[in-house]
Amino acid sequence: MSQPTKESIEKAHLDIAPYLHRTPVLTSRFFNENTGAALYFKCESFQKTGSFKARGATNAVRKLSAAQKERGVCTHSSGNHGQALAWAAKKQGVKCYVVVPENAPKVKLAAMREYEAETTLCSPNLAARESGLQEVVSRTGATFVPPYNHFDIIEGQASCAKELLEEFPDLDMLIAPLGGGGLLSGTALSARYFGAPGIKVIGAEPAAADDAYRSFQTGQLVPLEHTTTVADGLRTSLGNKTFPIIKRYVDDILLATEEDIIKTMRDIWERMKILIEPSCAVPLAALQANKTLFHGKKAGIILSGGNVDLGKLPFD
Amino acid sequence: MSQPTKESIEKAHLDIAPYLHRTPVLTSRFFNENTGAALYFKCESFQKTGSFKARGATNAVRKLSAAQKERGVCTHSSGNHGQALAWAAKKQGVKCYVVVPENAPKVKLAAMREYEAETTLCSPNLAARESGLQEVVSRTGATFVPPYNHFDIIEGQASCAKELLEEFPDLDMLIAPLGGGGLLSGTALSARYFGAPGIKVIGAEPAAADDAYRSFQTGQLVPLEHTTTVADGLRTSLGNKTFPIIKRYVDDILLATEEDIIKTMRDIWERMKILIEPSCAVPLAALQANKTLFHGKKAGIILSGGNVDLGKLPFD
Repeated sequence: MSQPTKESIEKAHLDIAPYLHRTPVLTSRFFNENTGAALYFKCESFQKTGSFKARGATNAVRKLSAAQKERGVCTHSSGNHGQALAWAAKKQGVKCYVVVPENAPKVKLAAMREYEAETTLCSPNLAARESGLQEVVSRTGATFVPPYNHFDIIEGQASCAKELLEEFPDLDMLIAPLGGGGLLSGTALSARYFGAPGIKVIGAEPAAADDAYRSFQTGQLVPLEHTTTVADGLRTSLGNKTFPIIKRYVDDILLATEEDIIKTMRDIWERMKILIEPSCAVPLAALQANKTLFHGKKAGIILSGGNVDLGKLPFD
Repeated sequence: MSQPTKESIEKAHLDIAPYLHRTPVLTSRFFNENTGAALYFKCESFQKTGSFKARGATNAVRKLSAAQKERGVCTHSSGNHGQALAWAAKKQGVKCYVVVPENAPKVKLAAMREYEAETTLCSPNLAARESGLQEVVSRTGATFVPPYNHFDIIEGQASCAKELLEEFPDLDMLIAPLGGGGLLSGTALSARYFGAPGIKVIGAEPAAADDAYRSFQTGQLVPLEHTTTVADGLRTSLGNKTFPIIKRYVDDILLATEEDIIKTMRDIWERMKILIEPSCAVPLAALQANKTLFHGKKAGIILSGGNVDLGKLPFD
């Protein structure tokens, strides 16, 4: 299959919408005054399973053949993608297998099991995750659904920005968090297909995991080195599907420091009264560090998820 | 003035609406399955100043005479009411004075000052609060706006249930937290005036501060003894305006244990991805402890506020 088109995104959105929430868009007088911009927060924290990942996972399961559905889907994940795939599979009557590193948050593991996924614990490193997954595939014939580097996933994530632009067609810019690039790729495609002419798309990345920033600057895919950024959903590298889309359709990548991510997360909780996870604070943190770029603009911000471990908050 | 009428609540709602948010109503598959009821959460945590108190305060300031507005308003408060009155006064160009116990949460004191209220710190006891207030009144001639035992306050709070019933006219019951009784009184009046015939109204109170429960059972106003309930917004006794309304129009009062309040607060955070304060968890906690009463019913739950001190969460 090839890169999602306007028509394929429209079709995907139509087909996955019955499973999903059309999430609300919130505004905040405080953050508008604080940034000098008019901000529209698309709250995927209220999405099914607590993050935008439900969109791509639902789309990936939808597009399986009948034979593939019979054998099930599998992935390795410590968090939101595993939860989302388990949920999406259950909703469509498909068996799901998830290989989970043993240090994954208990609440996420519990959620996968609540959605009836068969979970296998493994050591917390990529080699163990991949060999665990290979074992599942050999044993079950399940189809691997990767977390971001897949056109079906990108196509599903694109529905988020599409909804935001349907509600606010005249946005000057969109800003989304950037880890593996699935959400940002989908956002960039939807901006091009459904946004006003000239709309800008910006990715926001933790400075402590700036592989995408460096890839974007150099034009060469730079792998992510070990990182402990608090934005745990963004500890991933771009892939060979997401990087070309981002290179072509994204206007800029901005960085946020760890300190600003944590402060912004707390500010969003206190001011907007919503739970968001650290990764989700990265776009507003990056925006606040680059206010002049946004001054007087109407900007859509994707709040990507709200799955936070209340026992391990990064502030006190 | 006398008890609010259907017409006076309609007029109040019309006049205060331009200042306020029409707050969203959320639903939760998880809590519906968990309780066997269909629950409609009216989210006053998203209200201006973070609680329903903005409704009553706006109404009380609106109803002042021009001469009273000239001299300003005052109150004593450690929390939501002081914040709400400061905000409502500022919005209507009226000076506000708040006497604040010195152990009040810093974030609430900061909010009052952000809304340009003149704050005076006092010792954390009722005598000091009242003498501090008396000093302000003598010095400034400001009008005292009490937190709940006042018909203008009750009339403003009534707008919350009115909105919920406009959106869901066929609710079988409404449940609201109960401290001083301003919100519950307004809820009961709106249920009678704007609800379906036979709609039931239930107050929810911490078992550790069950003065209203005992007053309701005995028909005599029982004062609140010292309490350290985690539901700090409900550490107040009924008054001579709220108790008669509650006696007449409320169907039942249910209690919630401290353990259940804390667990329910955390469950709402994790499942609904919204910040609510402990007092706000009391209705759902009481409902879950009395599930059979609600089985198969459509129940509106007032989520009263989201002003929580993130540095002092009751769970870990």
